[in-house]
Amino acid sequence: MKIVSARDFRLQREVDYGTAEQNQAVKDIIRGIRTEGDTALLRYTEAFDRVKLSPQDLRITPDELQAAYSQVEPSFLEAIRAAAVNIREFHMKQRRASWMDLQEDGSVLGQIIRPLQRVGVYVPGGKAAYPSSVLMNVIPAQVAGVPEIVMVTPPATGGKAGIDPYTLVAAAEAGVTEAYRIGGAQAIAALAYGTETIKPVDKVCGPGNIYVALAKKEVYGVVDIDSIAGPSEIVVLADDTANPAYVAADLLSQAEHDEMASAILITPSRPLAEAAAEEVRKQLAELPRREIASASIEQYGAIIVTETLEEGIEVVNRLAPEHLELMVENPMAYAGLVENAGAIFLGAYSSEPVGDYFAGPNHIIPTNGTARFSSPVDVDDFIKKSSMIYYSKEALFKNGAAIMELARHEGLEGHARAIEVRLKNEGEAE
Amino acid sequence: MKIVSARDFRLQREVDYGTAEQNQAVKDIIRGIRTEGDTALLRYTEAFDRVKLSPQDLRITPDELQAAYSQVEPSFLEAIRAAAVNIREFHMKQRRASWMDLQEDGSVLGQIIRPLQRVGVYVPGGKAAYPSSVLMNVIPAQVAGVPEIVMVTPPATGGKAGIDPYTLVAAAEAGVTEAYRIGGAQAIAALAYGTETIKPVDKVCGPGNIYVALAKKEVYGVVDIDSIAGPSEIVVLADDTANPAYVAADLLSQAEHDEMASAILITPSRPLAEAAAEEVRKQLAELPRREIASASIEQYGAIIVTETLEEGIEVVNRLAPEHLELMVENPMAYAGLVENAGAIFLGAYSSEPVGDYFAGPNHIIPTNGTARFSSPVDVDDFIKKSSMIYYSKEALFKNGAAIMELARHEGLEGHARAIEVRLKNEGEAE
Repeated sequence: MKIVSARDFRLQREVDYGTAEQNQAVKDIIRGIRTEGDTALLRYTEAFDRVKLSPQDLRITPDELQAAYSQVEPSFLEAIRAAAVNIREFHMKQRRASWMDLQEDGSVLGQIIRPLQRVGVYVPGGKAAYPSSVLMNVIPAQVAGVPEIVMVTPPATGGKAGIDPYTLVAAAEAGVTEAYRIGGAQAIAALAYGTETIKPVDKVCGPGNIYVALAKKEVYGVVDIDSIAGPSEIVVLADDTANPAYVAADLLSQAEHDEMASAILITPSRPLAEAAAEEVRKQLAELPRREIASASIEQYGAIIVTETLEEGIEVVNRLAPEHLELMVENPMAYAGLVENAGAIFLGAYSSEPVGDYFAGPNHIIPTNGTARFSSPVDVDDFIKKSSMIYYSKEALFKNGAAIMELARHEGLEGHARAIEVRLKNEGEAE
Repeated sequence: MKIVSARDFRLQREVDYGTAEQNQAVKDIIRGIRTEGDTALLRYTEAFDRVKLSPQDLRITPDELQAAYSQVEPSFLEAIRAAAVNIREFHMKQRRASWMDLQEDGSVLGQIIRPLQRVGVYVPGGKAAYPSSVLMNVIPAQVAGVPEIVMVTPPATGGKAGIDPYTLVAAAEAGVTEAYRIGGAQAIAALAYGTETIKPVDKVCGPGNIYVALAKKEVYGVVDIDSIAGPSEIVVLADDTANPAYVAADLLSQAEHDEMASAILITPSRPLAEAAAEEVRKQLAELPRREIASASIEQYGAIIVTETLEEGIEVVNRLAPEHLELMVENPMAYAGLVENAGAIFLGAYSSEPVGDYFAGPNHIIPTNGTARFSSPVDVDDFIKKSSMIYYSKEALFKNGAAIMELARHEGLEGHARAIEVRLKNEGEAE
């Protein structure tokens, strides 16, 4: 790994907005689904997934979900159940109640919090089917109280029964209420606009390929979408108490994700920098995904040697990483100084995979510097708020003049008259 | 107003995505600001606002803000101050604390809540400068704790001093910390990317013309943006206890906003439907903005007569209106049945302008059916969350096997080894 100075380091990765052809293809698919519904959905599934289905095949039945349990190892089931418990417990703490504010003049103001009614979760097929992502997308919706959670996932090429049983088990454990074997832009369009078989949803979330991402962008506004994730990142801030083997293993666990993933060590200790670089070399040689990981380390990896840990924190805040590990003697002394980071892991035992799979907080976290203004997926992503205003007659008579003053200043006489008609009609002293 | 059946009614308005020329113009302006900074900013200001400024003119000085106070009437100042107090009090109740969850094995999980660091608020110039919108955009950011709140507003054509004093007073009262006389797409680009004079922000919000809207869409991802508001809507659900003059005045207060605004009465009472229609005719004839209001009523207005109030609620939930008034005998009996509405006004005295200007809840509310999945602007729009994970050694040893099981199932051996290196190095029983 290259060792660089803080001043020289910039992390810049371009977001993929798709080619003109990809954008056009997605627009065409969406138009097809809007005009032809199931007919188009089956045609695209045959064309892109090479699976010929009839409308009654689209739904993955509750029996199929149940049957998947016999195809997974007991140790997997036990692990995913333990993870689901932790994720559910953490997200339960994010639930909020509607509230009211009763005023002295008899008025009542409030904020009503309700779950979304129906949410669609996209789960990629094949090797990109991550059961952990199913939990992280579905459980917050379920904890928010969303009554209808619909999973879509592409059928495996060549057979209608080819849905990964681990995905199905994760879906059943997380609380999916309906599932369909459809994928790609056509699945997103079906969720947004509905077809004869599929009822439209209020929000679409979950990761996918470029066609899925472009389709989500395209339907945004008709439904809500989650943010479109970029490549993953880790920054480890460490002092000379850190174990270089732990530091290196954590950097590599990020680098193995994707050639565009980024793994960065920041430390004021040159001996640690050198020892960690050596450990990365050693561990990388034995990693099954070493080709991906070395490409990532080469292009987007770095070791930054700073004067102090405080200077390291400044670099962290500028990078606004998705994941930050504070592998320092007293991590609590630095956590409060972190302005921008999606998830913060404290101490030697809080390795990032602990959060990716198990501890409870969500693993869908803002990437590419967007932790400056956005947040991990949570229960708030699956609720909507309404304001409530009950104004008393006393309040209207007391404040009517001020309301009319402001309305007339803005040239909105009709607004003023909506107040005035009441004051004139019921006013005694007016 | 036309009286229609619930079955026949559909509200559909197209969103304006701009012409190809407008989109290209906005892209060019953003590129100009990114490459040339202040130089481009001054050039566009001269070209579009016809005002020749030098870099030191860009900033609206604190002295100018103060001087504006002498140009507004005391009654305006009093009204805006009273409104600001109410808005601040309501939004204070939305503030949330960071929290921690201490586990039995010594682990600590948590959610850290922080304000955004720097926010830009766009305020349109000329007749579209609404002081009330300045309060509604700025106060939630201030209550969230955002330390730097930057207002931009275009200079009036022909003079550098031409900023509306009412806007400046509203800005000062709301808590703006910096202000610049710039507008259009160039102002949005300057806020997103920064120039020599203007430091970049984390989020841009506030309404504007089509160029401002397109620029916000374009910079989204570099910074956060608020949603792009569509034309305003009101639905009044009323029974035969409602005063038709109040109903009509409230419908017209919405219709006068914009020819694309929508005002809809839903009632099971045909006599009320007819009396309200007659009142709309009468009041419309005397409204200063009657041309706008009649175009709105003609195209997007309707009176829907239902069998029952419950059927009316079903129509409301389908429309998901921005504003809903429940002008019925017992509004609380129906509030709980409303699934989708941005703001709900209960009873005869809660006329919509009460909320537009004064009561406290935000008047920036989801339009065009998006209340199905989005919410009024509030303090949550100006915060970011970070997850925190402190995992104890005990927790890692207890759960390491499950974490490795899940990682290996997903083919991410590097993730498993980040756990394993710790268990092997420090394990006694391993």
